[in-house]
Amino acid sequence: MNYRVILHILGALLLFEGLSLLLPLPFSYYYGDGDAQAIITSALICLGCGAALFLPTGSKKDLGIREGFVIVALGWTLLAAFGAIPFVIGGAIPSYTDAFFETMSGFTTTGASILPNVETVPHGLLFWRSLTHWLGGMGIIVLSLAILPILGVGGMQLYKAEVPGPSPDKLSPRIRDTAKILWVVYFLMSALQTGLLMLGGMTLFDSLCHTFGSMATGGFSTKNTSVGYYNSLYIEIVIIFFMFMAGVNFSLHYAFLKGNFKSYWKDREFLFYIKFTTLSILFVTIVVYFSNYHNAGQSLRAAAFQVVSILTTTGFVTADFEKWAHAGQIALLVLMFVGGCAGSTGGAIKVIRFMIVLKQGVLELRKLLHPNAYIPMRLGGRVIQPEVVTEVLGFFIIYMLIFIIGSIIMTCFGLDLVTAGSSVAATLGNIGPGLAVAGPMDNYAFVPAGGKWALSFFMLLGRLELYTILILFVPEFWKK
Amino acid sequence: MNYRVILHILGALLLFEGLSLLLPLPFSYYYGDGDAQAIITSALICLGCGAALFLPTGSKKDLGIREGFVIVALGWTLLAAFGAIPFVIGGAIPSYTDAFFETMSGFTTTGASILPNVETVPHGLLFWRSLTHWLGGMGIIVLSLAILPILGVGGMQLYKAEVPGPSPDKLSPRIRDTAKILWVVYFLMSALQTGLLMLGGMTLFDSLCHTFGSMATGGFSTKNTSVGYYNSLYIEIVIIFFMFMAGVNFSLHYAFLKGNFKSYWKDREFLFYIKFTTLSILFVTIVVYFSNYHNAGQSLRAAAFQVVSILTTTGFVTADFEKWAHAGQIALLVLMFVGGCAGSTGGAIKVIRFMIVLKQGVLELRKLLHPNAYIPMRLGGRVIQPEVVTEVLGFFIIYMLIFIIGSIIMTCFGLDLVTAGSSVAATLGNIGPGLAVAGPMDNYAFVPAGGKWALSFFMLLGRLELYTILILFVPEFWKK
Repeated sequence: MNYRVILHILGALLLFEGLSLLLPLPFSYYYGDGDAQAIITSALICLGCGAALFLPTGSKKDLGIREGFVIVALGWTLLAAFGAIPFVIGGAIPSYTDAFFETMSGFTTTGASILPNVETVPHGLLFWRSLTHWLGGMGIIVLSLAILPILGVGGMQLYKAEVPGPSPDKLSPRIRDTAKILWVVYFLMSALQTGLLMLGGMTLFDSLCHTFGSMATGGFSTKNTSVGYYNSLYIEIVIIFFMFMAGVNFSLHYAFLKGNFKSYWKDREFLFYIKFTTLSILFVTIVVYFSNYHNAGQSLRAAAFQVVSILTTTGFVTADFEKWAHAGQIALLVLMFVGGCAGSTGGAIKVIRFMIVLKQGVLELRKLLHPNAYIPMRLGGRVIQPEVVTEVLGFFIIYMLIFIIGSIIMTCFGLDLVTAGSSVAATLGNIGPGLAVAGPMDNYAFVPAGGKWALSFFMLLGRLELYTILILFVPEFWKK
Repeated sequence: MNYRVILHILGALLLFEGLSLLLPLPFSYYYGDGDAQAIITSALICLGCGAALFLPTGSKKDLGIREGFVIVALGWTLLAAFGAIPFVIGGAIPSYTDAFFETMSGFTTTGASILPNVETVPHGLLFWRSLTHWLGGMGIIVLSLAILPILGVGGMQLYKAEVPGPSPDKLSPRIRDTAKILWVVYFLMSALQTGLLMLGGMTLFDSLCHTFGSMATGGFSTKNTSVGYYNSLYIEIVIIFFMFMAGVNFSLHYAFLKGNFKSYWKDREFLFYIKFTTLSILFVTIVVYFSNYHNAGQSLRAAAFQVVSILTTTGFVTADFEKWAHAGQIALLVLMFVGGCAGSTGGAIKVIRFMIVLKQGVLELRKLLHPNAYIPMRLGGRVIQPEVVTEVLGFFIIYMLIFIIGSIIMTCFGLDLVTAGSSVAATLGNIGPGLAVAGPMDNYAFVPAGGKWALSFFMLLGRLELYTILILFVPEFWKK
């Protein structure tokens, strides 16, 4: 293990975080909430620690696979650990456990909060809170499209064969160049959403924060009642559109911007994603029509927003879905496991893995009929290698096992079954709100400290596609 | 499709059921509850219909794989459909939906009941109810050790390589001979348990009924408070022992009876089963010690009985585990998915499949470290073929997907999330009692008729290892 290069890159990350901490300052000064001093102090701590790691460790040596895993896991943890400091110094979240939970929730684009009243938090800190989403989203795009395929995590090398148009092979093979290209797409879409939200009457501050929440599929809002506060159909449509788009593979957006307008319709995952979203909205609309709203328009509006919000793992809320019929609630709970497309900012298991899992089910049945035949799996005319299928099935199962073990752990902290299960589903899948006591109109403040650390760990685990973290616990990893 | 041979065998099954219906008659006459006429009428209906199918269809043609699937699926359904008749005619269960649910629950060795007060049911009918468990158990042993491996369902061909001692290859290759050998084991163990229960003070009637419930891992009791009624440590220990043994691969018992006393300790699945049971008992004991009983002996006693009862998918009850802490309840809920060993009468996913799933998880992590190496899965020194691993992973996933879809369906009938989820887990896994409204001290009478048919279908689906039923829905199955 080359520890010098690890420390060097972690130092660079902290320097980057320190600089990012300066971005909320204009809002601090403009709104004059008195949080500027706390933010500047935190930025200096970040810059100081970052420089102390970065400067003495200059290393030209190439990164190995194992260094890559350590950097990804430690990097996210370090960003959350240091990003929590301004909340503690500024007094908005006095407990470091709570501040760490909130910041981890930000950087993992989860959106689960321990704040009972976000509207009293000073604007500079509130901006930083939402900014952690956006920065986390930047990290995820690079991780999922440039780093994980190289590390070979959970069948994700298959997306190489899957993405049409300018295949990632043709994207510059170097991580840095891939990152730059995708970040331009991310930035342009964010700018567009911010503009559209301002047209709908939102302030620049709220527009930016809700854009960060949408594009990163995070879900932190600046209002206690989330997007429901605005009660504006226009704003909801804009946010639905951008949440949905943030749940799409960003290399498709890139292809589109390069002029390949058909890129979306050639992608099997995207087509499935659209169909699945539509069917889910339809199902939930019917359920809430009969159980709650008795009005087609209102039912469709609430269902569409909530389905897209949960499926893309954003977690914005316009309706108290805890009050929906059980069938509507369980539908949302199931959506928490599906998540967005691979290469999006969405979390959870991902659409492509669900497609492969479903196809494998049908394949198994066909194999029973033709016991001696070799039937390969096809996706859009291409053959998916059996090893990739096994990796995807393995990922699905490990995800479910972690969900189960996590739910048991949370019941040990006294949570009831629905709260425990949904809080693990909502953190592991990086959604945010769960059900019952952790529902859309509640927050995670009630969870005991140990439970908050556990949930923070699940956020990290889910965001980094499980294996990136789990591999650190394999003794073999540290040998040699 | 050779329909003649299908009808021939189904007819034979009905003739067998008709004869079995005569077995409760001694108890009908002895207790004089007036249910003899209903039982005789039902037996005649079975014998008549059976003869009408059997006699004109005599066929010498060999069975194909597809005929096998149809016979297994239709056979179980037909047994439940005709077995329900005496309950309706006898008036104990006036609704045919309820009677079908109860009988399907019997033949699938589930043990879920719609009877609020079993103690008022006439003894003849009560005996028939328990006998359906025992007959279903006979069917399952043959199905899982003789038929499914031939059909190649869900990786179960792997047990051939796994079972040590007199490997199933050396058991007579013909289904009928395999069946006879295993039924002798089943019969001997049942006789032993009945004797031991009578020594504990149970009547012959209750001993037989509780033996049927244990050996088939069924769970129907003749008492409203199940085994808790006896409040006898001796009886609980006897039942725990036989439930545990019924959850073991019956070819191990056969090896033991043939004098191979080490057969158990050489079997990896059995060793894992013992360890897993012990750890689960330990966990639940600790939970209920602190949350409920505050007494080590009482906690261990309640935990041991309930863990073994749920893990083996029996469903007998001595403690109202709905009143346990959430951590104890969720532990039981998780056990509902594990189930007994392959080749036992236990249901659910099965221990061996969990072992392979867990091993695959570790394998995936090791592969990340050695991306170019081929690492085979080993179990007890033997290599498990990748195709078998994929089939097992596929089975696990389809089980979870059916559980999820089933839970959604049950919420559409108005059940809350915990009741819906646990009732599907408890029927799909052939356990019996669930949680919340379907808890150990409750019954399934409250479920709307449509929901009862759905749950009956889940019992069948789970009992027949999913694929046997699912394959009937593949259009390709019916072609050619």
